[in-house]
Amino acid sequence: MQIIDGKGLSQTIKNEIALKVKEIKNKGQKTPHLAAVLVGNDGASETYVANKVKSCHEVGFKSSLIRLGADITEQELLAEINILNNDDEIDGFIVQLPLPKHINEQRIVQTINPEKDVDGFHPVNVGKMVKGLPTFLPATPFGIMTMLERYKIETQGKHCVVIGRSDIVGTPMSILMSRKNNPGNCTVTLCHSATKDLKKETLRADIIIAALGYPEFLTADMVKNDVVIIDVGISRVKDETKKSGYTLKGDVKFDEVSKKASFITPVPGGVGPMTVVSLLQNTLLAHANKKII
Amino acid sequence: MQIIDGKGLSQTIKNEIALKVKEIKNKGQKTPHLAAVLVGNDGASETYVANKVKSCHEVGFKSSLIRLGADITEQELLAEINILNNDDEIDGFIVQLPLPKHINEQRIVQTINPEKDVDGFHPVNVGKMVKGLPTFLPATPFGIMTMLERYKIETQGKHCVVIGRSDIVGTPMSILMSRKNNPGNCTVTLCHSATKDLKKETLRADIIIAALGYPEFLTADMVKNDVVIIDVGISRVKDETKKSGYTLKGDVKFDEVSKKASFITPVPGGVGPMTVVSLLQNTLLAHANKKII
Repeated sequence: MQIIDGKGLSQTIKNEIALKVKEIKNKGQKTPHLAAVLVGNDGASETYVANKVKSCHEVGFKSSLIRLGADITEQELLAEINILNNDDEIDGFIVQLPLPKHINEQRIVQTINPEKDVDGFHPVNVGKMVKGLPTFLPATPFGIMTMLERYKIETQGKHCVVIGRSDIVGTPMSILMSRKNNPGNCTVTLCHSATKDLKKETLRADIIIAALGYPEFLTADMVKNDVVIIDVGISRVKDETKKSGYTLKGDVKFDEVSKKASFITPVPGGVGPMTVVSLLQNTLLAHANKKII
Repeated sequence: MQIIDGKGLSQTIKNEIALKVKEIKNKGQKTPHLAAVLVGNDGASETYVANKVKSCHEVGFKSSLIRLGADITEQELLAEINILNNDDEIDGFIVQLPLPKHINEQRIVQTINPEKDVDGFHPVNVGKMVKGLPTFLPATPFGIMTMLERYKIETQGKHCVVIGRSDIVGTPMSILMSRKNNPGNCTVTLCHSATKDLKKETLRADIIIAALGYPEFLTADMVKNDVVIIDVGISRVKDETKKSGYTLKGDVKFDEVSKKASFITPVPGGVGPMTVVSLLQNTLLAHANKKII
């Protein structure tokens, strides 16, 4: 069994990006610049955004954090987005989700200039992904594809089972794993809440991508030997032995499943760090080629 | 076994559309208007476009056929598309594919105004489909979903196997069948040329959507009893007993598979007529709500 060390790999890729940023600066070009819009004070969102800003600094990007009150109107937020859309200094930006309930998230996402949509959430970028055209892949799927690639995990002709059909992870993963690419070229089964006998499906899988958000759901009896496990879940589970009062758990019962797996991502330190690094890669792409899309 | 009569159903839907068109005209509103651009003289394309124009007339739509020489430059074609994009008289239009090799098809498709893209091929419309947002579904998948709906075929929790991952049929079908909708909510396996043991997959399927373009590929030994069969293939196979010298065959060996199936589409007279009718439905949608997207 080999652990897929997302934390270590993300550091390797950050080092590669930092080198590229140095080259860019040496050539006298503008420094890549990522902006993040944070509406309100949600604890998890604060952590995610802080992490993104910190990662920008590590690789030498400029970053901007635009903080807006939870009571901002949709129109005011749209105006902020239009400023970022038209600001040539900003290469890419994200609007941290979720947004307060009085704001239509889809309208916000669709207002972002697709050429600056480094989260890859705009429908035109999703459509380009489906059609195999150059685009910004959504960060978590991009991170997973990078892990498979860098660890040289064979995917062609394999059976991949994706659990969860969310817009941002399960569905794009099912698409990317089925394309005629490497990584990719898998027979893909997409499972979800309406799947009748999930265990029957997972037992057939050479590769399982678990993205349902249910802690320790996938157990050893549900997988075959030598399976490759990508665990996207990250849930806080009560743990009184910890100072914080909780411990982080993935969707996979790591202790037992890891004994049967050929490759497995840990939680934390697996998919999570790769997600942030993919956002940096998309920003570099937006900087390099504003005409990509 | 019940035949899914695409020809009959398409006529029913045409009648429904014709009634709506009458209402529209009675209200003094503009008549729905579909335009088709045909480049060159490809025989199959001629037939398809003629069929679309004929269907427009049957339901009371206006139609325009724009014929362009095979030697048209990409720039000239883009200019034609921009005229259609900006012509308020035209509700929707299609550019018949394939195009001559010197023209970049993706550039053409991406130039069509998404609000008039009744083929549903523009990336922004593909992305909206993936995200479950209102949009123009590509015509063949739209037709198949309509057949499943009108024949009240249960899909929730079923296992659906899609054979073929093309942009216009296999991939969108795999997405639509997995969404939390009715029809939909299936566990979906997407199979293709890199699938190792296709028979193992099809034998597990409650619903099979065959879209690989290989005549009579799917045989009785590959399916289980009571399977639902949607046959998207349509190939010309030599047949000296026919005046034309050929006969049309689907991807399914109909004679034997129909004996095991609960529902099955014939070829011809199954998916084909539903494709044309879906284009009319999209045009009606474009006419009804130019602000849909």
